[in-house]
Order: sequence, then C-alpha cells, then structure tokens
Amino acid sequence: MKILNARALELFRKAGALVDLETQMVRADESLITAALKTAPERFDLVSRNRSRPLPMGGNAINFGFVSGPPSVHCNVKGRRSGNMEDYQNLIRLAQHFNIIHMLGGQCCAPVELPANTRHLDVYEADLVLTDKSFLGSAIGRGRILDAVNMVAIAKGMSIEEMKKEPAFCAVINVNSPRLLDDPLTEGLIALAEHGQPVVVTPFTLMGAMTPVTLSAAMVQQNAEALLTIALTQLVNPGAPVIYGAFTSNVDMKSGAPAFGTPENARANIIAGQLARRYRLPYRSSNCNASNIVDAQATYESGMSLWSTVMAHTNIVLHGAGWLEGGLVASYEKVILDVEMMQNMAAFLEPYSADGENTVEAITAAPPGGHFFGTEHTMARYEKAFYEPLLSDWQNHGAWEASGSKTATERATLLWQKALEGYQQPPMDEAIREELSAYVARRKLEIGAGEP
Amino acid sequence: MKILNARALELFRKAGALVDLETQMVRADESLITAALKTAPERFDLVSRNRSRPLPMGGNAINFGFVSGPPSVHCNVKGRRSGNMEDYQNLIRLAQHFNIIHMLGGQCCAPVELPANTRHLDVYEADLVLTDKSFLGSAIGRGRILDAVNMVAIAKGMSIEEMKKEPAFCAVINVNSPRLLDDPLTEGLIALAEHGQPVVVTPFTLMGAMTPVTLSAAMVQQNAEALLTIALTQLVNPGAPVIYGAFTSNVDMKSGAPAFGTPENARANIIAGQLARRYRLPYRSSNCNASNIVDAQATYESGMSLWSTVMAHTNIVLHGAGWLEGGLVASYEKVILDVEMMQNMAAFLEPYSADGENTVEAITAAPPGGHFFGTEHTMARYEKAFYEPLLSDWQNHGAWEASGSKTATERATLLWQKALEGYQQPPMDEAIREELSAYVARRKLEIGAGEP
Repeated sequence: MKILNARALELFRKAGALVDLETQMVRADESLITAALKTAPERFDLVSRNRSRPLPMGGNAINFGFVSGPPSVHCNVKGRRSGNMEDYQNLIRLAQHFNIIHMLGGQCCAPVELPANTRHLDVYEADLVLTDKSFLGSAIGRGRILDAVNMVAIAKGMSIEEMKKEPAFCAVINVNSPRLLDDPLTEGLIALAEHGQPVVVTPFTLMGAMTPVTLSAAMVQQNAEALLTIALTQLVNPGAPVIYGAFTSNVDMKSGAPAFGTPENARANIIAGQLARRYRLPYRSSNCNASNIVDAQATYESGMSLWSTVMAHTNIVLHGAGWLEGGLVASYEKVILDVEMMQNMAAFLEPYSADGENTVEAITAAPPGGHFFGTEHTMARYEKAFYEPLLSDWQNHGAWEASGSKTATERATLLWQKALEGYQQPPMDEAIREELSAYVARRKLEIGAGEP
Repeated sequence: MKILNARALELFRKAGALVDLETQMVRADESLITAALKTAPERFDLVSRNRSRPLPMGGNAINFGFVSGPPSVHCNVKGRRSGNMEDYQNLIRLAQHFNIIHMLGGQCCAPVELPANTRHLDVYEADLVLTDKSFLGSAIGRGRILDAVNMVAIAKGMSIEEMKKEPAFCAVINVNSPRLLDDPLTEGLIALAEHGQPVVVTPFTLMGAMTPVTLSAAMVQQNAEALLTIALTQLVNPGAPVIYGAFTSNVDMKSGAPAFGTPENARANIIAGQLARRYRLPYRSSNCNASNIVDAQATYESGMSLWSTVMAHTNIVLHGAGWLEGGLVASYEKVILDVEMMQNMAAFLEPYSADGENTVEAITAAPPGGHFFGTEHTMARYEKAFYEPLLSDWQNHGAWEASGSKTATERATLLWQKALEGYQQPPMDEAIREELSAYVARRKLEIGAGEP
C-alpha cells in the first residue's frame, strides 16, 4: 500500500515492514499483521454521554447507525435540496427519537451553508446537545478528531486522560482503494488511536472500479488493505480499539455507476463478517441502496443489505437508516422505512422460549376447526404477542381505500412528522451546555480561515 | 385431530391409532408417525411435460412457485378486478416467461366467469398448453385430482400406471387448523397419494387465530397437524411423495387481519425448515405480504418472507411471484418485483471460486489510487461479472429524472408488458393438444351441473 504520511511510514519501518520512502510504498509480512491482531481488542463498549446505554462492539451485538455523508436531503414535503443545518438537526432528532437507531453517523447531511473548515464543530455540538447517542467524528486531518475528543470529554465531564480509556465515538478511515491511504485520513487515524477512540477501517472497494471485477480478488484486496491499516492503529497505540470495516459492492459495468444492495454486495458483506470473526475484530458493514426514490427498489436493495449485515453478525451497521441515491441523499421517508425494517430484524432475532407455558393445554383450549381469539392463553398474552409495526398497514382493501389509499412512502411522511413532534431533547447540565458553546466559539476564532 | 372422512379414519384405526368414530377424533402415538416417516421419501424429482427440467424436491434445492388462489387481479393499467380467464392466461404466460419461476401455483387467479365445478379443467388445460412447467392441482375432492392425473398423463404421453411412478404435479392439502381435516381435501389427499403425486401438507396456522399466540405453541400445533396428515399419505400408499408445508404467520390482534412477512412469519419459516430437515422431508414455505399495493411495504414484507424461506432451505417457495393483499390479489407488477427479488437471491446463492485466477496479479494491475476499468482481468470478465438487474435503475438523479422519474412499480408495468410480448408458447404435439381438448369437453359433459 502507498501511504502518504511520513509518521505512518516511519512506524511501519520500525516495525519491520519494507518501506520505500521515495514511492511511499509499504509492504508488510504476516508476522507484522499477526502481532497487530494480537493487541487489537476483540470487543469493547462504545460509551456516549448517556452512560446507561453502552454499545457492545464485538460478539453478536448488532448496532444500527444513521445515514452518513450525503450532500443533499429529500423529503416528500419539500423535495430534494442541498444539505443544511435545519435538516441536519431534524434528521438527528429522528435518530434520537427511534430506539432502534443505536448511534448517529457522521454528518447525516452536509450543512453546506456553514464554512467547511469549522462545520464539524457545529455538527458535533448538535450531535452532543440534541442527542445522547454516540456519533462518527470527521477524520479529515488531526484537528477535527481532536475537536471531537475535546467536545465529547466536555459532554461526558471527563479529562482527556480519562477519554483515552473509554471509547466514546468512532470515525471511519477509508482506504482510497486501490491501496492508497491519504495524508489527512492517516492523520485522523493516528489522532483517534492515540486517544483510544475506535477507528473504523474501511477500504472503499467497489468491484470493477476500485477492485478487480471478481469477488475473490475484491475480497483479497479489501482484506489486505484493511489489515495493513488496522496494523497501523496498533503501531500508533497497541490495544487501541479498531473495527474491521467492509464496503465492498459493485458498479454497473455499463455506466460505472455504483450499485448497492446487490447480490454481490450481500455476498461481500457476509464474507467480510467471516473474515472479521477470523481475526477476532468487531465488524462494520452498511445498509445501502442505489434507488433515486423511496420505492420498491430502495426497499428490496436495502433488504438485501440489511439481511446480509444481520447474517454477517455486523456489530455496526452504518447508514442503517435514511440512505438514498447511493449515499447522495439523506431521506426523511427512508428513515422511517429503515426503522421499520430494522425493528423487524430486531423482533426476528429475539430469543423465544416455551418456558412457563403448557403448549398442549393452550392448543387443546380450542376445538377442532375453532379459533383462539378468546382463550385464556391468548387473553393473557395477546397485547405483546407480536411485533407491532410502525408503518405496515394491514387493513383490508376497502378500509385502506377509505383511509386514502396511501402507499407506505406516503404514510412514512406522516410518521416522521409525528416523530419530530414527539422528539424529546435529552437533558444536559447547563454548565456543560455552556462549556460546549464556548469551546465551539473559541475554536472558530482559532481556526479562522485556516484548516482545523 | 378431527378427520371428516371414513376411509381415513379406518386407515388410522388399522394402523393402531385411537379413533373415536363418533367424534371422528384421531390420536396417534409416536410409533405410528415414525413408521410413516420411514416410508416417506427424503427427496424426489417433480417432472413436468418438459422432461429436461426436473425440479429436485429435497436437499438444498430451492424452487420458486407462482401466486396461487387469489379471487382478484390487479395491474396498474386496468386496476383491480375479479379474476378471469384472460388474466389467468396472461399471468401464467409471465410464469412461463421468467426462468426464475420454476413452477406455477394453483389458479393464479380464479376465472370467476367460468362454472366453479368445471373451472379446474379450463385452468389445467391452460397450464399444460401455455406453459411446460409443473403446477398445483386443485384438491377439493377426488374428481379434480383425477382430472389432473389424466390430463398430465395425456400431456406427458404416459399411462396412468406410469404416472404413478413419476411425480408430475403437486397439490396443497391444508389442515383447517386447529386440528381439522375436512372431507373434500382428505379425498383429494387420498387420490394424490394413490397416484404417486406429491401432497403438500400445510396446516393453516395463523398465530392468534388458528393457533395460540405464542410461537412455541404454534409450532407444536403446526408440527402435530402436519405429521398426522403426512402419516395419512403413507397409510394410503407407503412411499408416496409428500412435502412438509408451513404457513405459520400471525394476525393483527387488534383487527384479526392476517399479516405476512412479519418477524413472526420469518421465524416460523425457519423453524419449520429445521423440523422438515429433522424428519427428512422436502419443505414448502411461501413468499407473502399483506400490502394493499405494490409499494415499499409489499417489498419489505416479501423481503422478510423470501430471505427466511431461503435461509430455511425451502424446496418449494409457493406464491413466489405475484402475491398481494394477503393473497386476495394477483398483481402483475408484483410478479416483476418478485422476479427481481428471486433473481437477486439466486445470484446471491451462486457458488464462487478463485480457481484459474491470479488475484494478486489482478489487484496489482492498477496502481495505488488508480482504477480497474481497463485492466486485462476486467476486460476478460466484465460482461458477466455481476448480476444484471431486471428492474433496478442505477442512473444518477438527473438521468433518472430525464427518463421520466419512474418508480420501480411504474417500471414494472413496462416490464410485464414487454415480457408478454416476448412470451413464447412452448411447443406441444398437435395430437396431444387435441386429446387434451377432447378430454376437457368430455368431462364437462360428464360433470354437467354436478360435482367433479
């Protein structure tokens, strides 16, 4: 791999890798990777400012995240528009509102009206004030990560030394596949590892474009890129939390357009989960689709993504809710669709048992050809017997027509509006609130027109 | 179980079951069931008039069927209407056209303009002439099954004795849950087993209505009903092909409305698959949803169904394509949606291998940060590298808008129209064609206003 960062090259050289300083190419053998995998933790908890809801990273725990990174926003009321702070705040309010969304993403939409070099401060502040869930920091350079460390420390009432011992937020470090790690992201990775905050190492591997077209070659490349980058976190700080991330999907070979929720994407998600378990690392994957609108395509592509992430035992399903247009749009209606689909998966995965139940007695309580609506067994349990859907409409056709013949997407509009009305801002100590604002104001002055 | 059929009661009595002739209740112990499971075949092939495409029933083979039983039809061109022969024919033309649909259902919509007592003859004739795929016979009484046996024998150019040795079509025998097997279906079951045609035994077990509300009790009941009914096929004809069918889903406890593609439905599909494997029987499940329209709900509910049937290693996925409104409507657009989703699953399940490939050479053919669009490895493989979708639109937003901003459902309308244009009637010997027509004409006279 080519790594455009002097400190990383030096760390690899010291660890015994072959490093060509002129070409910036790094070649590591198996022993270097094996040593790194020994110090990387198999599991850890991600602890936001709400200490009562630690997110287990590792094992079979599945945590659903929120859409990350789109430049634009869409809802059926106002249509498609550029990302902005008002939509940013409303979207993270939805992420806070629904319990199935375990953590935010990074910038669920870009607030493009704000200066690019201090925008991260505004979104961190919104994330920390409007929600009490963990989030993804922006890892473009060291400064944005340090700001996240400092602001999360304020929100948690912790010192920086204490922060180093407790993972609180993650950031995604994408390999610029094939085989390139750029300087700003490497700086971000180093800052994260130094502060004990989890690096989500994710090669950006769209088959046919950034990897060869075959699944076998794509998985080999993804794995090699991931392992070398994961090793770097351990060279910076042995024991630093790190997550094996996968984003392998394919492109349309006729147009080069990225595709998601494809069979190839689903296979890659599952294979990468097997690799992460092999290396005893927590695993990150995504819930993606490439539809231009919240329709049946968005839903079946997301269904392929979601089932494969669940079958893969994905510890963080990034972009869990709200992703549309291959990641170019954050969609309000898609948030609701995804929440329903993720809630379905959660209900599907709930353990069940016949303990404390006399099943034969329950069955014989109704005569042959009868029904169970009024039996004692039913009456004692019917209220919580089944998952109650958020969005599904099971009325008969006549009743559905009488109530306006609304599609699921149209009903989703009503549901996100209702969720925003029902949103409750999580409490925050006033002194902490002020300290956060003061930090943001001070840093904006410091940064000025420069880079953070 | 209560069985409203004298011959079945006598068979059970002779086999050592406790039979109360007054209440028609049958109680069988484990040994009777175990003996029946010993003679039921673990796998067999279903051979339609196209002998080159036998469908393996058993093991890991997944066969997708077609919607069965709706009284109504819907398409976005003509709207919702009663079932009729013209739509029946067009729908089975679609089933013939798409290779991912391995077999028809029974009456994909009811041709309600035709007399109910001879309708089965018209649909069998259409099935056998317009397609060369296997289908589900109508098992309401012995006569309809015998007509299927006779007509399939004509189409295959076989004697009835030869038919008995080669499964050619199935029929579903529903237990009228809880614990009731009615007389016409028992007659149908007996006729099927006598002629070596597979009985798809399927308790009709909607949790909360036809079973207790708990999954544990529902599975116990489904299993008991299935096993006793399966045993009956072996008492009629030891070695007769039989399939363990499951249809356990739940109802909305507020309205009693049936729900499909729910988490409970998915869990039950998977548990029942485990039971079928335990008993070494082929397994039947379904692709269902309860949406009133071909929208995101129809798609995520079908996605839950479809993934769970695949995870369950379902040998026949009945209602694979076209089911809508909880089975009250056969939808043209839904056929296309389901075909796309089933093709996705098939591509997902394809084995892959790195044999004959130098993956490292393929990867290093592009420089760090480069791309693979023009590499030799890509050029040799790109045309068949990925599943090419039938329905998904991966254009960027501008191009998608320029091409009419069509939803997946709107595009599906164009695709079924195109499929009907591309439909090719499978060849049939003219003498056979005439013999079929003559059989139908003769039987219609025989049946008159009576029961077949």
